[in-house]
Order: sequence, then structure tokens, then C-alpha cells
Amino acid sequence: MPAPKPRDAVAIAGPLGIIAGRGPLPCVLAESAEARGLPLHIVGIRGETREEIERFPHTWTRWGELGKLLAALDDHGCRDIVIIGGVDRPDFTKMRFDFGAIRNLPYIAGLRSGGDDHVLSRVVRFFEGKGYRVHGADDVAPELLAGVGPLGDRVPSAEDSADIDMAFQVVRALGRFDVGQAAVVANGHVLAVEAAEGTDAMLLRCAELRRTGRAGRSGRGVIVKAPKPGQERRVDLPTIGAETLNKAAEAGLAGVAVAAGRVLMAEPAATVAAANKLGLFLVGHTLADDAKGDATKPG
Amino acid sequence: MPAPKPRDAVAIAGPLGIIAGRGPLPCVLAESAEARGLPLHIVGIRGETREEIERFPHTWTRWGELGKLLAALDDHGCRDIVIIGGVDRPDFTKMRFDFGAIRNLPYIAGLRSGGDDHVLSRVVRFFEGKGYRVHGADDVAPELLAGVGPLGDRVPSAEDSADIDMAFQVVRALGRFDVGQAAVVANGHVLAVEAAEGTDAMLLRCAELRRTGRAGRSGRGVIVKAPKPGQERRVDLPTIGAETLNKAAEAGLAGVAVAAGRVLMAEPAATVAAANKLGLFLVGHTLADDAKGDATKPG
Repeated sequence: MPAPKPRDAVAIAGPLGIIAGRGPLPCVLAESAEARGLPLHIVGIRGETREEIERFPHTWTRWGELGKLLAALDDHGCRDIVIIGGVDRPDFTKMRFDFGAIRNLPYIAGLRSGGDDHVLSRVVRFFEGKGYRVHGADDVAPELLAGVGPLGDRVPSAEDSADIDMAFQVVRALGRFDVGQAAVVANGHVLAVEAAEGTDAMLLRCAELRRTGRAGRSGRGVIVKAPKPGQERRVDLPTIGAETLNKAAEAGLAGVAVAAGRVLMAEPAATVAAANKLGLFLVGHTLADDAKGDATKPG
Repeated sequence: MPAPKPRDAVAIAGPLGIIAGRGPLPCVLAESAEARGLPLHIVGIRGETREEIERFPHTWTRWGELGKLLAALDDHGCRDIVIIGGVDRPDFTKMRFDFGAIRNLPYIAGLRSGGDDHVLSRVVRFFEGKGYRVHGADDVAPELLAGVGPLGDRVPSAEDSADIDMAFQVVRALGRFDVGQAAVVANGHVLAVEAAEGTDAMLLRCAELRRTGRAGRSGRGVIVKAPKPGQERRVDLPTIGAETLNKAAEAGLAGVAVAAGRVLMAEPAATVAAANKLGLFLVGHTLADDAKGDATKPG
């Protein structure tokens, strides 16, 4: 099996602005950029972003302080930006808008409806409309993308592979509805499909199904994660991390399969280590759409 | 709009055996059969079936007492049977099998895997293989099937209708995976897709999404319920009741849409009354597959 061709980072000249949501990815990305000698400035959102961004040049904002966010980018000369780390759909009724936000209220109002991808595409267009170049996290740190084939010690069994194929089909069937980056299949039985609740909540539900005897024997079943067709890659690449593996283990699953080259691994080494420690497989699958590219199907 | 042609009950000669799971449907069905002058015998499962079956001729069994179940049917001359009311996927490891179950262990073992419909089709084939005629609840009590058009006082808005159409498409896209009788769509955004957790759990999840501000404005969004394509109608017709309407209201939805003639209403009058009391619409939609039949699309 030929190794997938490593992607090169996109060449970025000026300081990189990182608009940071939840989880470890904003700092992982900042580390990757710093290692490459790229100056950067992180804009965090109180209550969403981890405090560890304070290790880097940063500005804190609150939900609704769009003016402050834009000023922070401009003050630090950031014309290239990355929007990274999920956020909960904010409660607009509790938000206090600053002047910069009020000037952009028609845009903000438009975000209240529609599927995730719909919303995120509009976020990208908003920043592009103001002259920013919006990059994907994988443009800046391609080393975070999941590779092809087994990524840890274990490999899926033939039964696991059948569950993986079915789960990818489920995700694919839902993609045109702008929903569903993930699904859980055990022994040919679809246990859960992700919609607005998110991957962690879906895995907690599977753990509950397992506890109540409705998910069959423990150690069987897989979660797959893949982008939706036409998904706005630059702001919403599906992401897994060590916590995904922990929750998959709590749900009694055999392992995790992701779309190779299309899913980010927050802290790849820690994620693979978690899989090995828990005895779960972690595998990157080439999607049918990608088969014409460099990567080949594992197994 | 022409009224849907009422179906006639299937002619059944001998005593009707009702194998009863959870919820009100076993008794509702027994009442319907009694009103028609049909003798019957209910076999209940302890911990699943409501005690009110004791109003009718009945036998209690426990999970695993398949021999007792078959003997109860035979002792009361039931060759025509209905299997009605959902059961949780039982925990086979905690089951005590009687002799009749042990004789049929290869069949029982086969039930442990596969999707719901897969399992239920095998249950039907098992009883048919023993010479029973297995009827659907709608064969015995066609008056329980949801009709076409608005069933209560309220009607869906244009926006609701768009959400309904999308939700039916989601359910349809998943049907070939033997999963998903229900989905929730609000304002063009898929909030939840039902898999193994069941409709009530899915609606509770939507209520949580609403509470945490991730489901938009209350009073918007619909749940649709429809059978899976090729679903074993005789043992697994999707069902709604007053509780479905209560949970939809708790999730802040605008209403409930079902596939007309393909979804059972447990206690139709109480279900419609609940919709009216809660201010939710309740509507039966003709599926595209059915459009060649008698019913026409509402609105």
C-alpha cells in the first residue's frame, strides 16, 4: 500500500489570525504555526476557548463582540485567518452586541437558521467579504489530517470492516441534508446517527444503549466520522481526539474509522496512544470519491 | 380532497392471540377485537406489558418463556395472532429459558444481531413456521391508522410544510439501512435522527437542544414518523400517541406529521385531543409511494 502523499502547508506571508473555538485544536494549530516560524494572534471567546491560548499572543472577546474581534485581527495585521474549534450554536437572545456586531446585524441574523454547513459557509463569506483570506486548519497544519490505513496497533476484523462500510454509507446518505458527520453501526445494526447533538453526545447515547442491553455484545461496533459532501472544509473539518476514543470505549465499540485526509486529529500522537491503550482500532479509510487521488483503500 | 377509503378489518375466524409488548396498544387492540365480537387471549410479558391486560383473558409470561407463550396460544385455540407493542431489545444474558425456548435456541440466537426489521421479520417467520397466521394490528383494527390531512385543529404553516418534506426525505434516505422511523427538522435544519434509541429518547434530546439554545426558536420544527421501506408491517408499524405529542411539545416543536395509513395512533381520540390541547398540528401525509393509491396529498 503506497503511503499517502503528505500535503504541504499553504504558504502564508503575514501574521496568522486564529479565531478560536473550543477544544485543543486552536493551541495545536498555534504550535504548528510557531514551529514553522509563522507569527500569529489568537482571538478567543470567553466560555468557549480554553485558557491555554494565553501561552500565545491573544485577545479575549465575548459572544457578540464582533467589533472587538475584527479590531484584534486588524491591530495585529492578520489578513490570513483560520477559524478553528467548534462552538455551540450561541443563544442570540442572551448576547450583548458591540458596535461592530450591530453594524453586521443583518449577517448575524442570517446565521440563526439553516444547517451547520449553511451557517459556516456564510461565516467564511462574511470574512472574505471583509478582505480576509480564510484558510482551513489543514492548510496550515496538514500533519493533523488522519492518514490512510491502521493508525494504531489494532486492525479492524472482517465484521468490523462490514460495519465500517455500512456506517460510511449512512453518513453519505445523510450528507445532502447538511447533517451527520458520524454514525455508529454494530453488527450490521445502526445504533446512532449524529445530527445537531454532536459526536460526544451520540457516543454517550450508545454507551446508554449498551448499558441497557440494546446494543448487543460489548467490543463490537464502530463509529465512523467523515465530512459531509460539499462541506465547508475551511471551518468545519470533522475532528477526533483522545476523548473520542475514550467515549467510543465507554460505548463498548471496537474502534473508530475516519475518512483519511478529511478528518483532523487533535493531538495525533495522544489520539493514537489512547486507541492503543484502550485496545481500539483507529483506521483511516479512503472514501470512494477520493479513490482517484493518491491514497488507496486500506486492507 | 377526497377522504381516504376506510379499510375493512381482515376476516378472522378463530380466537385471536395477542402477543403483547409495552404501551396501550395491546388493550386498545383487544377492545377493538371485542367490539367486533372476536374472542381473544392476550399473552403478556412481565416487566413489559401493562397490567391492564388483566381486563381480558390473558396469560403472563417472562422473557425466555417461549414454551409457555406457545402453550398459552395453543391452549386457547389461537391460530391467528397479532404481535403488538414494542419491547426493548432484551438482555439475552439475563434471560432464563424454559424448555420451549431451549428447543428454539438457534432461532433465538439469530435474533441477537441485525437491524430491527431483520429481527422482526424473523419473529414473524418463526411463528408462521409453526403454523400461526400473523396479522398486523392494522388488519385487526384499521380504525387505528392515521388518516390523511390535518387530524386536529391546527394546520402546518408553509415553513412547517417545508420542514415536514425535508424530514420525510431524511427518513426515506435512511430506510434502506433498516433504521430511522423518525426525524426532527426545524427551520431547514435536521436536529435529530432516530436510530436504536427510539422516538421518545430522540424527542428528549431535542428538548435538551432547545434548552441549550441549539435548536432555534421554540414553536418551530416538526417530527415526522413513517415506516421504513420494506418494513415488516405486521409487527413493527410506527406508532404515535398522546405521549408523542407531549414530548414534541416539550421539545418546542410546532407539530407532528405521520405517513397516512402507515402509522398507528394508539388511542386516536386522546392523541388528537392532546395535539389540540397543546396547540400542535397533527397531520397525515401521503408518501410518494402511496400517491397512486386512494389517498391524496393534504394541503
